[in-house]
Amino acid sequence: MSLLESTVESIKEINRDFYESAQKHLDNLTKPVGSLGRLEEFARRLVAITENNSPMLDKKVVFTFAGDHGVTAEGVSAYPKEVTPQMVLNFIRGGAGINVLARHAGADVIVVDIGVDYDFGEIPNLLGMKVVRGTRNFAHGPAMTRDEAVKCLEVGITLAKGYAKKGYRIFGTGDMGIGNTTPSSAIASVLTGRSVAEVTGKGTGITDESLKHKIKVIEAALKLNKPNPSDALDVLAKVGGAEIGGIAGLILGAAAHRIPVVIDGFISTAGALIAYGIEPKTADYMFAAHNSVEIGHKAMLGKIGLEPILDLNMRLGEGTGAALAMLLIEAGLKIFKEMATFGEAGVTDEVIN
Amino acid sequence: MSLLESTVESIKEINRDFYESAQKHLDNLTKPVGSLGRLEEFARRLVAITENNSPMLDKKVVFTFAGDHGVTAEGVSAYPKEVTPQMVLNFIRGGAGINVLARHAGADVIVVDIGVDYDFGEIPNLLGMKVVRGTRNFAHGPAMTRDEAVKCLEVGITLAKGYAKKGYRIFGTGDMGIGNTTPSSAIASVLTGRSVAEVTGKGTGITDESLKHKIKVIEAALKLNKPNPSDALDVLAKVGGAEIGGIAGLILGAAAHRIPVVIDGFISTAGALIAYGIEPKTADYMFAAHNSVEIGHKAMLGKIGLEPILDLNMRLGEGTGAALAMLLIEAGLKIFKEMATFGEAGVTDEVIN
Repeated sequence: MSLLESTVESIKEINRDFYESAQKHLDNLTKPVGSLGRLEEFARRLVAITENNSPMLDKKVVFTFAGDHGVTAEGVSAYPKEVTPQMVLNFIRGGAGINVLARHAGADVIVVDIGVDYDFGEIPNLLGMKVVRGTRNFAHGPAMTRDEAVKCLEVGITLAKGYAKKGYRIFGTGDMGIGNTTPSSAIASVLTGRSVAEVTGKGTGITDESLKHKIKVIEAALKLNKPNPSDALDVLAKVGGAEIGGIAGLILGAAAHRIPVVIDGFISTAGALIAYGIEPKTADYMFAAHNSVEIGHKAMLGKIGLEPILDLNMRLGEGTGAALAMLLIEAGLKIFKEMATFGEAGVTDEVIN
Repeated sequence: MSLLESTVESIKEINRDFYESAQKHLDNLTKPVGSLGRLEEFARRLVAITENNSPMLDKKVVFTFAGDHGVTAEGVSAYPKEVTPQMVLNFIRGGAGINVLARHAGADVIVVDIGVDYDFGEIPNLLGMKVVRGTRNFAHGPAMTRDEAVKCLEVGITLAKGYAKKGYRIFGTGDMGIGNTTPSSAIASVLTGRSVAEVTGKGTGITDESLKHKIKVIEAALKLNKPNPSDALDVLAKVGGAEIGGIAGLILGAAAHRIPVVIDGFISTAGALIAYGIEPKTADYMFAAHNSVEIGHKAMLGKIGLEPILDLNMRLGEGTGAALAMLLIEAGLKIFKEMATFGEAGVTDEVIN
């Protein structure tokens, strides 16, 4: 049995009894029942995911997967693809948005070259796990072979396993890849059943003209490659990307190891859709970090049944939303673990009416 | 000139040139222009409020003002008013929601007895600044005299001044007071012009029956006391509360000292409406922490022109939303101060299209 197969097989359904026991404790804390809203939800879910009545979030990590996209040759992005390796080096030096926000959240950042079209050589703090040197241009044929797509998933699975072993308690997903809103919109269209136009936006900031062109490129690619909506691996291979595959694999691995995983924005949610398509039980292990500006994001989250935590008009990717959302998930856990109960505090819990 | 008058007089308009200079720096950071959305807005506003191109948020504090309400005699709350002093003691011992979330945000909590109907004596860590021992029942006449209302405002102003001097860089507002959604809804109705039913909700959790009664009590009180919508101080005195006055005063003082102030939820926004009614320039110094579950909150925020940062179905008060929002405002500042520029990182910033 392959690593992918054994991982998927080991993903178990959440034991919902833990939601109830966790809520019972929350209802005994010195506050009106339910008055901390989603913070209480986060606590309940952490308890159920970990099957631990006193979960910890002391070690956090955001994985930023980087990859290039052959389809940039079609002029679908505002930036040239040289920016992908430049930004990878920026991550390594700690100067990017994800570095700042992960530090703020107390999370480590792991940068993974899974498909950048550049030879970094050996660089400290860069995980070289290249599966492809950029995907092929899916305007002319599949972006990857099925085998390459499996390898991308297994990179994510391997990282999840390794970092679970190292004692990390929560994962965040992140991406870097010039042009990667294009494969993400393609995946969104195939797996949500929406039209390409409904799920395709301006990415890092193309013009109205370029957006029309981007939609046409995706529509033509779907016609040409015919990805099978009931086979998420086929979708990933034909119109996906290496970093999207890495993210999907990380999610599968997180679920297999009962580790909560925070899904960043649009590109990460394309990865989440692939993971969900492979094994729907993964949904119970996911937290949706935020509502991206990119149109189509809401439809993707809706398909998986996720409600975004933040809505701050962000559209940077890298894992920036995931890092911020970790701070709020942790807030929920601290409420669960640190607040006094009515009994401890000598506060009346009898409601009058 | 009274402390209130001199404070209001010293509140200056924001110099909007700082928004531009701050945005210029943000646009030079290694990210697509505007892609960090509201985080960028937070940074711009901090720069403009403090007139400092490198603002600091190293010292943060949430003020939780506690007071009781004579109108609880009308049966408008789910909890008995003994819970107010019990919760104050819980704050002092560090077991309440605000303690947990302020610790998480790195903020101090200052608990202020401005109007609790209980004699605490001398207790360490409780600021005894009582103006009234509970307000009077506004179903039968004004909740406070105009002089008492001014004193409440001046408690907040004095705290703002003192904590500005101590080097605190950002304030959060918080409240504790059984029954205080009732005066808050009364204030909301008078100062937004909405009907009482449109701005009155279930508070900590009363029944549908009790909600109807609560609306009737407020409607009758407005008829009886006739608060003048163009005189916010009159509104505070007749149908407000001591903690709401303290919050309003804190906001006036924050604006006078160019300190950003994070408005918590429904009750704090009633205080913000009073401050805004007294001096509309205060709006530029406010951040709206979150969208409370309590209906009417949106209308109040809209009146001041504030967009809430979080929306997590919270309705606890105490300053819990303000503490969480501080973490996000600080994230914006760190982006502004810690991210590399295109030049520093050697990243191409030429957009293709």
